[in-house]
Amino acid sequence: MTKKLKSSRKASLRPRLRISSGKDIALGPGKVELLALVAETGSIGAAAKRMEMSYMRAWSLIQTMNACFKEPLVEAARGGHKRGGAGLTKTGRRALELYQQMEEASVKATRSGWQAFRKLLRG
Amino acid sequence: MTKKLKSSRKASLRPRLRISSGKDIALGPGKVELLALVAETGSIGAAAKRMEMSYMRAWSLIQTMNACFKEPLVEAARGGHKRGGAGLTKTGRRALELYQQMEEASVKATRSGWQAFRKLLRG
Repeated sequence: MTKKLKSSRKASLRPRLRISSGKDIALGPGKVELLALVAETGSIGAAAKRMEMSYMRAWSLIQTMNACFKEPLVEAARGGHKRGGAGLTKTGRRALELYQQMEEASVKATRSGWQAFRKLLRG
Repeated sequence: MTKKLKSSRKASLRPRLRISSGKDIALGPGKVELLALVAETGSIGAAAKRMEMSYMRAWSLIQTMNACFKEPLVEAARGGHKRGGAGLTKTGRRALELYQQMEEASVKATRSGWQAFRKLLRG
């Protein structure tokens, strides 16, 4: 076996789903990551930190999300949003689940096209 | 029939496919639109104008694309890229076609999830 000397560029396809509601983006890759991290950490502050964004930025994204849905996706657990923890509501968990399912379905549906496409790319 | 008085916010799901090659974005929603417009108009300048971007910006996007693929996607028809028209190469047409097919497959695959998702959104 000879060593591969050519530099290789990693190719990838990422489907990014953007859900709009009027002029707002109700959910997209960034907001969904935030949502998943709030669920994981139980805290808006911890989720914001993991995404390297300010608390206020995270809080503002959550307010936009909450306003786009019939029911809020994130709720403060107790004592207001700054003191206690936070978590996803039932609607929040459902929205996250459906988004992830759609993302997965999209990856699956593009798989064969992607196999053909990547052959066109420089290695 | 009573007139619907509630303000309605149009909800939509848009799958955006981003194809990376190393650190570059080989093809994404913006580049694909440019590619389709070069094919349609036969001119980088006309395509740039339709996208409200400068000729130099369009030319730079095309150079990035061309460098990511084994063969260029866009070629000047004659007399250099500023004088004559431009068009897609065989690889360019194939890349555009595959991208659009993947986009369509993605829309189709997310359809049932989207029907469930939109019910969560404020009307």
